[in-house]
Amino acid sequence: MRVYNFNAGPAALPQSVLETAAAELLDYHGCGMSVMEMSHRSAEFQGIIDEAERDLRALLAIPESYRVLFMQGGGTGQFAAVPMNLMHHGVADYIVSGTWSKKARQEATKYGTANVIASSEDAGFAFVPDCADLPVDADADYVYLCQNETVNGTRFATLPDTKGKPIVADVSSCFLSEPADITRYGVMYGGVQKNVGPAGVVIAIVRDDLIAEPAFAGTPVILDYKTTAAKGSLYNTPPCWNIYMCGLVFKWLRAQGGLVEIGRRNNEKAALLYDRIDASALFRGIARPDCRSIMNVTFTTGDAELDAAFVAQAKAAGLVGVKGHRSVGGLRASIYNAVPLDAVQALVNFMEDFEAAHARAASAEVIGTPSSPSSPSSSSRSSQGSASSI
Amino acid sequence: MRVYNFNAGPAALPQSVLETAAAELLDYHGCGMSVMEMSHRSAEFQGIIDEAERDLRALLAIPESYRVLFMQGGGTGQFAAVPMNLMHHGVADYIVSGTWSKKARQEATKYGTANVIASSEDAGFAFVPDCADLPVDADADYVYLCQNETVNGTRFATLPDTKGKPIVADVSSCFLSEPADITRYGVMYGGVQKNVGPAGVVIAIVRDDLIAEPAFAGTPVILDYKTTAAKGSLYNTPPCWNIYMCGLVFKWLRAQGGLVEIGRRNNEKAALLYDRIDASALFRGIARPDCRSIMNVTFTTGDAELDAAFVAQAKAAGLVGVKGHRSVGGLRASIYNAVPLDAVQALVNFMEDFEAAHARAASAEVIGTPSSPSSPSSSSRSSQGSASSI
Repeated sequence: MRVYNFNAGPAALPQSVLETAAAELLDYHGCGMSVMEMSHRSAEFQGIIDEAERDLRALLAIPESYRVLFMQGGGTGQFAAVPMNLMHHGVADYIVSGTWSKKARQEATKYGTANVIASSEDAGFAFVPDCADLPVDADADYVYLCQNETVNGTRFATLPDTKGKPIVADVSSCFLSEPADITRYGVMYGGVQKNVGPAGVVIAIVRDDLIAEPAFAGTPVILDYKTTAAKGSLYNTPPCWNIYMCGLVFKWLRAQGGLVEIGRRNNEKAALLYDRIDASALFRGIARPDCRSIMNVTFTTGDAELDAAFVAQAKAAGLVGVKGHRSVGGLRASIYNAVPLDAVQALVNFMEDFEAAHARAASAEVIGTPSSPSSPSSSSRSSQGSASSI
Repeated sequence: MRVYNFNAGPAALPQSVLETAAAELLDYHGCGMSVMEMSHRSAEFQGIIDEAERDLRALLAIPESYRVLFMQGGGTGQFAAVPMNLMHHGVADYIVSGTWSKKARQEATKYGTANVIASSEDAGFAFVPDCADLPVDADADYVYLCQNETVNGTRFATLPDTKGKPIVADVSSCFLSEPADITRYGVMYGGVQKNVGPAGVVIAIVRDDLIAEPAFAGTPVILDYKTTAAKGSLYNTPPCWNIYMCGLVFKWLRAQGGLVEIGRRNNEKAALLYDRIDASALFRGIARPDCRSIMNVTFTTGDAELDAAFVAQAKAAGLVGVKGHRSVGGLRASIYNAVPLDAVQALVNFMEDFEAAHARAASAEVIGTPSSPSSPSSSSRSSQGSASSI
């Protein structure tokens, strides 16, 4: 039996995509071998990667003036690749809105000056910083941001004004989650293991004029945009199976109605869950409401033990992956494209049941009855005077 | 129907491994999700990567003093990672025996002085260079070689004397093909897509004393041995599915009898094919006999059109991937671990039939009969005076 999967990444994939992959695993389209066994120089694999690119271009309406690069090393590899390729003047501006943009900026300091031009770190990254009037450096080669912060559950609902500088955006955890105007970006890149496919591929969509000899002389060829583009992402052996899986997901997305329809569903799912959190006397959201991600919903009871009990009981009920990231704590439900509405409804129902059980246990304790074994932490919570979070 | 797969990489995988992967693709061991959907921080995935490492250690008898790193970026990524991590004195010595060691040395020049201390490039890489008395640089941090050159079909049957310098060896196309003494190596690394699993993982086995802060300040964290080792290959999201597949292949190898038995089979397969080549009046081997690879068998008719006819007819007969690398031409059969003896026997039988048909067509032509349509090139061959190769 398949579980309801709220993992933050790697994460749920569409069941029909997995069924297709299993059915053709030993023999792809009658060629007598698995996609995992075919030469990356074969006509069959060229067909797979070409079709994946075509479907991605159709989904995002990517114009001819952008190149689509399938690379290895994940988002963390791009933290280096972006400054290595683009920092021709040795300076870039970073908006630090959470765990991942902070890491990206840290990596960039190896290759030049990585200014922090906006940050919400002092506020624990509970919101994205105000970017109404960014102090953009005249020499900056780009302005960097992470559009959706997986760990913190925040997002930029709209892109900031970067005063003519190219925007480089990590979209790993909101990739293809709703329509986006690719022409607003210099580089849009995403690790695929959240919304697009199995871990092992990162897709960088790069505007043609930004593709040049790498700025940094020590750029490894595997992170070199120019070589990757010139060789159609086949300079060296690519992760063929992972690209094939992305292609199946692109086809699935198109069959669902593309990004308009998937965006409608994602907003509906997020609203259902945030409404439950906001109506709850037990749970509260972590991200500031105006910055809430529609992909990663962070929330908490305010009590670490009670949060842990929620995670354990949810797992026992077939709801997997709702533990918050270790750096933030609390709870997190990632509701990517492949998580259906009924999974979110099941989570909301479970939250209601958990809250009701907790309320019964807490009131029983007030009149001297031992607390329910299903809520082992309720006693310690009350003894710590945290009743306000009930 | 599955074909006989002689691809050079990505390449054949054991059919039973593919069957297992297909059977548990939607639900791994009852956890309710695919390996492609599980968190890399989950107990399930930790179990997968730990077991893969254990089985690899058992196969190669890797002592505790070596670390096993699962990385991204393939062998080409390691071309940079090796000098970035190890070139503390800014110098390394390279043995250039073919296409891949030449590329590795070229990439290393970005990070320091990469001496060529032996080369067979002038001879078209038809053999591995004489390494009896290597002019090792006193300052060299390591001596680099590619143990089996996939493109050229040559190998080092034994490791050279590097006069106390650590050996760094790319074993991509001979990984786990026969027993090896890991303690002779400073670093043994291999892209997995030939003998071990689907493209997207490279495994580096690194001696503890070589793991330190990277020598090169601009080393991207994804290529940093020290960080990768400290984080158990989980600093960032790894290619989980690809590692899982490698683990299945390790289990399969152990079930076959380990490297002693697989080495016996590989030598038997190679002998069968080379014996046919040496007995043939039509085909000749490309690599010098004393340097012949037991994994990649390069040969040719000496006639590009006839080689092309062989490739096309072999494919039609269900023998896929026997075209030589574009830089060498001719023919190549890669007979990795997962290629069974009966596949090699089928190829040998096909070569005999092809040779007999060609001889009939050539003799018919001598007495004025039109050449056989199945050997369209025989006429041009004879007209070019290349009858000696028949």
